[in-house]
Amino acid sequence: MTVAEKTIKMKIDSPAMAATSEETRNRALKKVKEALIENKEIIFKANAEDLKAAEEEGVGQAVKKRLKFDENKLAAVTEGIEQLIGLKDPIGRTLLKRELDEGLVLTRISVPIGVIGVIFEARPDALVQISSLCIKSGNCAVLKGGRETARTNKVLFDIIHEAAKEAHLPENCLFQVEAHSQIDELLSCDKSVDLLIPRGSNAFVRYIMNNTKIPVMGHADGVCHVYIDKSADIDKAIKIIVDAKTQYTAACNAAETLLVHEGIAEEFLKKAAVKLSDAGVKLRGNSRVSQIIECEKMEDDEYKTEYLDLVLSVKIVADENEAITHINTFGSHHTDAIVTEDDEAAEIFMQMVDSAGVYRNCSTRFADGFRYGFGAEVGISTSKLHARGPVGLDGLVTYKYRLCGNGHIVGDYASGAKQFNFKDIDA
Amino acid sequence: MTVAEKTIKMKIDSPAMAATSEETRNRALKKVKEALIENKEIIFKANAEDLKAAEEEGVGQAVKKRLKFDENKLAAVTEGIEQLIGLKDPIGRTLLKRELDEGLVLTRISVPIGVIGVIFEARPDALVQISSLCIKSGNCAVLKGGRETARTNKVLFDIIHEAAKEAHLPENCLFQVEAHSQIDELLSCDKSVDLLIPRGSNAFVRYIMNNTKIPVMGHADGVCHVYIDKSADIDKAIKIIVDAKTQYTAACNAAETLLVHEGIAEEFLKKAAVKLSDAGVKLRGNSRVSQIIECEKMEDDEYKTEYLDLVLSVKIVADENEAITHINTFGSHHTDAIVTEDDEAAEIFMQMVDSAGVYRNCSTRFADGFRYGFGAEVGISTSKLHARGPVGLDGLVTYKYRLCGNGHIVGDYASGAKQFNFKDIDA
Repeated sequence: MTVAEKTIKMKIDSPAMAATSEETRNRALKKVKEALIENKEIIFKANAEDLKAAEEEGVGQAVKKRLKFDENKLAAVTEGIEQLIGLKDPIGRTLLKRELDEGLVLTRISVPIGVIGVIFEARPDALVQISSLCIKSGNCAVLKGGRETARTNKVLFDIIHEAAKEAHLPENCLFQVEAHSQIDELLSCDKSVDLLIPRGSNAFVRYIMNNTKIPVMGHADGVCHVYIDKSADIDKAIKIIVDAKTQYTAACNAAETLLVHEGIAEEFLKKAAVKLSDAGVKLRGNSRVSQIIECEKMEDDEYKTEYLDLVLSVKIVADENEAITHINTFGSHHTDAIVTEDDEAAEIFMQMVDSAGVYRNCSTRFADGFRYGFGAEVGISTSKLHARGPVGLDGLVTYKYRLCGNGHIVGDYASGAKQFNFKDIDA
Repeated sequence: MTVAEKTIKMKIDSPAMAATSEETRNRALKKVKEALIENKEIIFKANAEDLKAAEEEGVGQAVKKRLKFDENKLAAVTEGIEQLIGLKDPIGRTLLKRELDEGLVLTRISVPIGVIGVIFEARPDALVQISSLCIKSGNCAVLKGGRETARTNKVLFDIIHEAAKEAHLPENCLFQVEAHSQIDELLSCDKSVDLLIPRGSNAFVRYIMNNTKIPVMGHADGVCHVYIDKSADIDKAIKIIVDAKTQYTAACNAAETLLVHEGIAEEFLKKAAVKLSDAGVKLRGNSRVSQIIECEKMEDDEYKTEYLDLVLSVKIVADENEAITHINTFGSHHTDAIVTEDDEAAEIFMQMVDSAGVYRNCSTRFADGFRYGFGAEVGISTSKLHARGPVGLDGLVTYKYRLCGNGHIVGDYASGAKQFNFKDIDA
């Protein structure tokens, strides 16, 4: 069956998936958890083969760590499923209840989005998390994981799909796309897929965004800034920029640019350069920066660069307004922080910076669904529509309006025979 | 200045617009209202010229009614502005407040979307409503109205823009695109325009959706259904389908297809055909329908047709499931109604039909922001992301996350030195 044919079947099954009870969906999650534990040796075996192939291709230590699925990862994903089971049902919630007139009652009810396609990096735990989130939220999911863990993914997917069917979820609630070449086919399924969530490199996400009519949720760039205000506590500022730059350089929420108020630049930059250099960070700056610290020269138009590496752009700004304008112009509207002890400066920054996350006196690395207490995340969105920032269960639902009457017609209201009489009812 | 240059300026001004106080925005609305009343003769004069030109082009009576801006329309829009002033501020609301750990507090705050482009039909009152909604919600707005009311629009826009500036809203909060040829330029401004709301013909909206990278909110088709269940009250059913089809045929929420359960088809169709025919409706149906009533023959693949006229497709279905599948396949996910006295049938229909509005025993024509009690609407969305159904102020806002710490870094949590300790705080 082609991807197009399969997603049409999923679209047809999606109202039945949306209609499953909370109990059924939680039972399915419990079965998924148990099946993963029961079949762990098969999973580990497939993962060993993936790891061996990766080794032969000569992948680095950091990548191998992500590819690996062992007892620890199993424990983490099963604990995640247990947490998900405990979360409040995201669907079937009454978001508004209003009598429009006698006997004519409007309700707004949260419902699943329908069919969601998720394209994610080579991390077997991601496959478990994403399918669990979709089951919990009553969505049908098309999954495409990274090539390097194809064997592990296949085993994991079969176990999860089998458990879901045993719990009486619709047959077509889950589907795995295995070949990279099928991604383009998936992108053309705008009649049957309601939402795409691509995760991965900037170029890959941008490719997805530019080649589909399906709404896309996610982010391409993560050009995050830390701005050191003239009223910053220098020790705090150094701790924060070192963490934001070095704690995990490959993450989208890692800092790429350090902005410094000219009133504190000399003192701060001299101290910070030592600490950043100790942490292995290579600094780049324009000519003004290079007058204070040793750094690689860069041009002003390079401030849009996302390094995802131990490299940091540095710029001195005349005041907070220049910092805000720089961030809104050169940034990616992801997560940006100010370090300051001045409440007013903090308030202006957080108001005027147009990003999904605006932080004060903490590291940009906190931008993450788990750290926000969402239990899990499907990704981070830099779009302003639907969900913004880290996206948990809330981002996987929409709503529908129900209107119940007793023969009510608009003609009576247009003619003036009847009048609306809005009365909100506690939901 | 080109549209691209202007929208870049609006994007730069948008954080300042977002930062305006509720008081300032309400004061601006009050000034807009007063200025419209003060300058009404100038507006009426421009409108008379538009009407004269339309007359010369030979437009119909219904269109002229829409183009006209008189004392009644002025009273309606100024009353609308007064209502908007009274509505709760949609921005600056705390949607979530959570302590992640001691001294590290996350808040989710509603904020304007930024720069919104609205392309709307030739109705001067729409220009006033849309600009008022954008002012209330702190958004910058690019407005493009229909050509036939260009003179009225220009006068209205200048009055509104002047009043907004007098109230100290940013200079670039409003901008009017006057030439139809500039629409394509606007579509290319995906770096500076955050959202497009096109209203108008199916072909026009589809053109917009297919020719921009800017997120689009709205609907192309409105293929709405009324399904008459076997347990329907026939009198109610006839009243509802006549209203849904004829009360305003040009509206997107008018019914285009009548589905009838075979168990009630003979009795219902014979009675309904008389009433629909009395109301001037031409019926079309497949061969099964034509065995019961006189109608124009149609093929099954024509059931996707949006007539926007006194024409109605009719189909007999074997049961409720066939009705649901028909609606989910041939419909446009806008608004669909069941007429039934059977609670269980109603519940299944409303659960399984995948549309923005699912109705029981009332006309599809109720799908409208005013009738839902939203005070005003910018349009109706058939997308499942962001806003669905009639869109009022709620659909013009997004949110941002604020995180305030005191030197908090992720390294401490990754190493286990600190643990998250989530505590929701009443907002």
